[in-house]
Amino acid sequence: MFFASDNTSGVPVQILDALSRANGDFVAGYGNDPINLALRDRIRDLFDAPKAEVFLVATGSAANALAIASYCPPWGAVFCHELAHINVDECGAPEFFSNGAKIVPVPGAGAKLTPQALDQALMRAGKGGVHQVQPALVSLTNLTECGTRYTVDELRTLCATARAHGLPVHLDGARFTNALVTQGCSPAEYTWQAGVDVLSLGGTKNGLMGVEAVVMFDPAQAWEFQLRRKRGGHLLSKNRYLAAQMLAWLEGDLWLTLAAHANHMAAMLEDGLRQQKDAKVLFERGGNMLFVDLPRSSHRALHGAGAQYFLWPDHASLDGPPDMPVAGRLVTSWCTTKEQIEEFLEALGKI
Amino acid sequence: MFFASDNTSGVPVQILDALSRANGDFVAGYGNDPINLALRDRIRDLFDAPKAEVFLVATGSAANALAIASYCPPWGAVFCHELAHINVDECGAPEFFSNGAKIVPVPGAGAKLTPQALDQALMRAGKGGVHQVQPALVSLTNLTECGTRYTVDELRTLCATARAHGLPVHLDGARFTNALVTQGCSPAEYTWQAGVDVLSLGGTKNGLMGVEAVVMFDPAQAWEFQLRRKRGGHLLSKNRYLAAQMLAWLEGDLWLTLAAHANHMAAMLEDGLRQQKDAKVLFERGGNMLFVDLPRSSHRALHGAGAQYFLWPDHASLDGPPDMPVAGRLVTSWCTTKEQIEEFLEALGKI
Amino acid sequence: MFFASDNTSGVPVQILDALSRANGDFVAGYGNDPINLALRDRIRDLFDAPKAEVFLVATGSAANALAIASYCPPWGAVFCHELAHINVDECGAPEFFSNGAKIVPVPGAGAKLTPQALDQALMRAGKGGVHQVQPALVSLTNLTECGTRYTVDELRTLCATARAHGLPVHLDGARFTNALVTQGCSPAEYTWQAGVDVLSLGGTKNGLMGVEAVVMFDPAQAWEFQLRRKRGGHLLSKNRYLAAQMLAWLEGDLWLTLAAHANHMAAMLEDGLRQQKDAKVLFERGGNMLFVDLPRSSHRALHGAGAQYFLWPDHASLDGPPDMPVAGRLVTSWCTTKEQIEEFLEALGKI
Amino acid sequence: MFFASDNTSGVPVQILDALSRANGDFVAGYGNDPINLALRDRIRDLFDAPKAEVFLVATGSAANALAIASYCPPWGAVFCHELAHINVDECGAPEFFSNGAKIVPVPGAGAKLTPQALDQALMRAGKGGVHQVQPALVSLTNLTECGTRYTVDELRTLCATARAHGLPVHLDGARFTNALVTQGCSPAEYTWQAGVDVLSLGGTKNGLMGVEAVVMFDPAQAWEFQLRRKRGGHLLSKNRYLAAQMLAWLEGDLWLTLAAHANHMAAMLEDGLRQQKDAKVLFERGGNMLFVDLPRSSHRALHGAGAQYFLWPDHASLDGPPDMPVAGRLVTSWCTTKEQIEEFLEALGKI
Repeated sequence: MFFASDNTSGVPVQILDALSRANGDFVAGYGNDPINLALRDRIRDLFDAPKAEVFLVATGSAANALAIASYCPPWGAVFCHELAHINVDECGAPEFFSNGAKIVPVPGAGAKLTPQALDQALMRAGKGGVHQVQPALVSLTNLTECGTRYTVDELRTLCATARAHGLPVHLDGARFTNALVTQGCSPAEYTWQAGVDVLSLGGTKNGLMGVEAVVMFDPAQAWEFQLRRKRGGHLLSKNRYLAAQMLAWLEGDLWLTLAAHANHMAAMLEDGLRQQKDAKVLFERGGNMLFVDLPRSSHRALHGAGAQYFLWPDHASLDGPPDMPVAGRLVTSWCTTKEQIEEFLEALGKI
Repeated sequence: MFFASDNTSGVPVQILDALSRANGDFVAGYGNDPINLALRDRIRDLFDAPKAEVFLVATGSAANALAIASYCPPWGAVFCHELAHINVDECGAPEFFSNGAKIVPVPGAGAKLTPQALDQALMRAGKGGVHQVQPALVSLTNLTECGTRYTVDELRTLCATARAHGLPVHLDGARFTNALVTQGCSPAEYTWQAGVDVLSLGGTKNGLMGVEAVVMFDPAQAWEFQLRRKRGGHLLSKNRYLAAQMLAWLEGDLWLTLAAHANHMAAMLEDGLRQQKDAKVLFERGGNMLFVDLPRSSHRALHGAGAQYFLWPDHASLDGPPDMPVAGRLVTSWCTTKEQIEEFLEALGKI
Repeated sequence: MFFASDNTSGVPVQILDALSRANGDFVAGYGNDPINLALRDRIRDLFDAPKAEVFLVATGSAANALAIASYCPPWGAVFCHELAHINVDECGAPEFFSNGAKIVPVPGAGAKLTPQALDQALMRAGKGGVHQVQPALVSLTNLTECGTRYTVDELRTLCATARAHGLPVHLDGARFTNALVTQGCSPAEYTWQAGVDVLSLGGTKNGLMGVEAVVMFDPAQAWEFQLRRKRGGHLLSKNRYLAAQMLAWLEGDLWLTLAAHANHMAAMLEDGLRQQKDAKVLFERGGNMLFVDLPRSSHRALHGAGAQYFLWPDHASLDGPPDMPVAGRLVTSWCTTKEQIEEFLEALGKI
Repeated sequence: MFFASDNTSGVPVQILDALSRANGDFVAGYGNDPINLALRDRIRDLFDAPKAEVFLVATGSAANALAIASYCPPWGAVFCHELAHINVDECGAPEFFSNGAKIVPVPGAGAKLTPQALDQALMRAGKGGVHQVQPALVSLTNLTECGTRYTVDELRTLCATARAHGLPVHLDGARFTNALVTQGCSPAEYTWQAGVDVLSLGGTKNGLMGVEAVVMFDPAQAWEFQLRRKRGGHLLSKNRYLAAQMLAWLEGDLWLTLAAHANHMAAMLEDGLRQQKDAKVLFERGGNMLFVDLPRSSHRALHGAGAQYFLWPDHASLDGPPDMPVAGRLVTSWCTTKEQIEEFLEALGKI
């Protein structure tokens, strides 16, 4: 019963097979190999973006921070939701890579930005005044940190708001595929056609060993990005092993299948939880993450039964009155099984 | 005939097997898994260093830059050979991770520092004066950039020189194993017993997909290192896949076997080159790298025959008088074959 | 009628005289001169802090940012009020000098932190987790950005809260003297005895040309600070001209006299405003700053009559319904005259 | 007998008078005052550069580092002489302000770059390769660190070399006026007409308290510069006091008169030294700095007689054989007197 994170799971056999196939002879390093070329073309096709540039790194923090730094100068401000991963979970990676840019947290229910809140924050940002950091970038997350999902329309409006203030848009897509498969639109509609300039396309949380692609729909920043990637120690010499994984993942819709399964497991879990009278599901589920209020005593019992997951928010604690509800964060994965869901719900039902 | 770099090769089957074995169930992320624990213990054993801390990253530049930044403040100076990878081949990664430290290049034949040159550079460094960056760290490379090797005695004397100036020592060991197997000493003798404080232990160039370990013999900087690694985007969530590779590599002396093979192939190549009258081997070979002066016409013919390698130094060119010798850099790998060596020598012999 | 800021005023004649006296012969540069020595001793005496180190810079942003960087690593977090100058008015100087530390804004009425809000923010800060920036410093401002003032007791409790979390305390004292003279305590009681570790002692807003002292009550960070100051381009070679100004300012209580006058002018202005039925004074005045709600039409009339001051907050605007009140920020100075106050109140009275 | 540096002198009475005149009423802060406007126009006139932007800071290190950072990205390389102040005397300020750019030291006799050495360094710089920092800027110094001077032709050729590689040129003019008055050309000929893009125009070493102007002949980087200046803590609020000094300095050729006097004193000193048989003047004097080899015993006697100056280079020492010559660096100033020169030469003659 492992619901702590989708990054604690393994990888499907297709990925191991792809690594074997990629192995073998000498090939040029640093991404100048045929597999990387094929991957780039595959992503261009899938996103209907023939000029997009694609760069691989091994972590989501690297993808986000490098993308952000390529669009935001040291004296710039990045506007994002106050719960965004880049703001609270990357130990200041965006500040480090941008050399001290400021992340401006914007509030919003369910970790979603609203155009109103974003516009207000941008109006107050002090653009043009030498005493204030200068608005440089909007960063959205989809799925959000609360597991909610932006619709295509919502995304379009937010990007238009950013654009009205002259700002480009970054999309943190650590769980992009989980959002995409439920939203049921094309990758293009869900990114550049809605106004996204640069995407962190996450593979790790959806079945890869540690592969993330930065997709730059506008290649203007591509050379700067490459220098930043190298300088950041994120240009792997044996790059084929990253590309091979992601290429296999994109073949035959494997990426979609994996995400759809994780989402389906979350739906099952949600259904079960909604039937428990002490459980209160907190946000509108957008993919494979659930947040649920449970009495502290229930959390203790579930943990005792072997369920692994985090309380939410991070500083929440099981110390305190047993009846007092506290939220738990439950994340399903491409390899979560129906049996694990049933076991969890059963354990909860017994309490 | 691929002699461009040892990082263009694949990985041995044992590594693929190790990935398969590591796959499977959910495990805790970010290095808190049993494989990482086992790897740490294995390295502590091999290096006879029970308190050492071990941290994995995916590139050598990350290992070097994070290690350096953990020992060198922004206003510090790192002393290294002028040809050191950290000085010329990492696009300023050490400067980036240290937030602007200065690399002070020191000359020396065959890319080796001498105690005299190091001492002189340190004497001139302006320690204690507020107008100068402050000496903070010595960084050595073994094998060096010219393929030469430090003896244990040389290493010990250089570390003592650093220590006499109050400085710790970093060892860039991208090709540490290639040096070790020829030197024929223990890992401990070749590192902390000689005075090395922190080692970048390279796996990538000796048969891994992209795995480097930073081994901190003194754990005092370990927490800072971990924060820097996370902040640098270098903490892989599915860390087990890094650890599994390196653990398999260290099992049953695989790492030594692979490096010994590469060195043996380089020895064969060297023997053949020394019999060619137009070829002049440039440095004392320490492991799996060779530098050889050849007439430009020979280089052209070899390239024409399919040999892949770089000229040296980087700005060298085949433009110019055909008889004028230019250096080529030839690197062998764990999977270089006797046939490839023979083919190369044969092609050269025909010229 | 110049109430825009106390940094738009000139300097008293004593400061010009001090510059003349300091002029003349050759003296050692970079602060190694007798006037700097005398100033250091004078500050040690005044603050009853015989081991304090004193370093001069020419701007408040430099004083704050250098002090903060000396106590906060790149992966650290600085906790301050959300309106603090370091958070909103220094174009990211603390982020720049600390190489990317994070400023964590904490809310509080009248720009004052409460121990509760500070404690809550620190509890939630994720200390010890590698994914979060690590709490490193609390920065307080006195006078605050809303012109309010901490009492000695309030300061002591806030510092104790910081200390309970293991954090040192920085005090931004751009208007320290204005707070001090009204508070009526000793400089020591108002700083290190209350728990402040490092003080930005502002001279510029109280009658100097551009002189701020960083007073380190604990000299442990003094050498690092000096290197940071030099590296930041803030070590003036002809340092005597900074020291001479501040020494004259501290002689015969000139600093206190100047601040007391500014505060007195603000009191007069406040008295007058409180008698206007359309005016609403917003915060409890702590020194020489006033915030007052007035109808937009009144602001327009006052501006028309020649009064110079800013609306508050920065993004406030005179566009909109004339009756709708908007806040103005009125700052008095050491050289504000009774006539200027009367003229302003008269202009307002006529509306 | 104070020959340690021209930054240990005071300021002429005209500067004190200018401060008095600038004092008085409230004026807008941060450089938006009439004196700054007048200064900008005066510099535009003097340099025949109607579009130039002028920004003031209080130190030469700030001027250099901010100018460099505005033209050199973090992954950029700055090419300068190995003895340049930016390379050896600013505690890494350029690296700090540029966020880790690399300074590439180029050798050359008398601290002067030659077009050949510069071209060779640029040819080897690895432009276009992702593993190397990218050439971004050439920085020249005039007067050089050895007190030599570039002719207009030399400057023009060096700038053309930079331009041929696509690089802009920064001129560190801490002693620009000393070079200018001896060279006998116009400020325009000696800067932008020769190919200089941005000038650090030093006032401090030629009679000001701490005022340096960054003159951007091409204003394209002006807004970025202003944000960097603020963020660096180098935007003084009471900016008029900087501008007033420099404006007075530029009035009636005061700046030229002061520098000409300093140069004249150096010429006297040089004449005297050339008549001493044990003294060997080292470089061709370009202005107000002299380097002279003297026996250690002579240095000791001169120091004993009260002469103040530094040995050169920094790590030189008086320990050792008394007859062995060591270089001394002698700098004259706008206020050095004929009597001081005579006293020095007399003391030397007695040895």
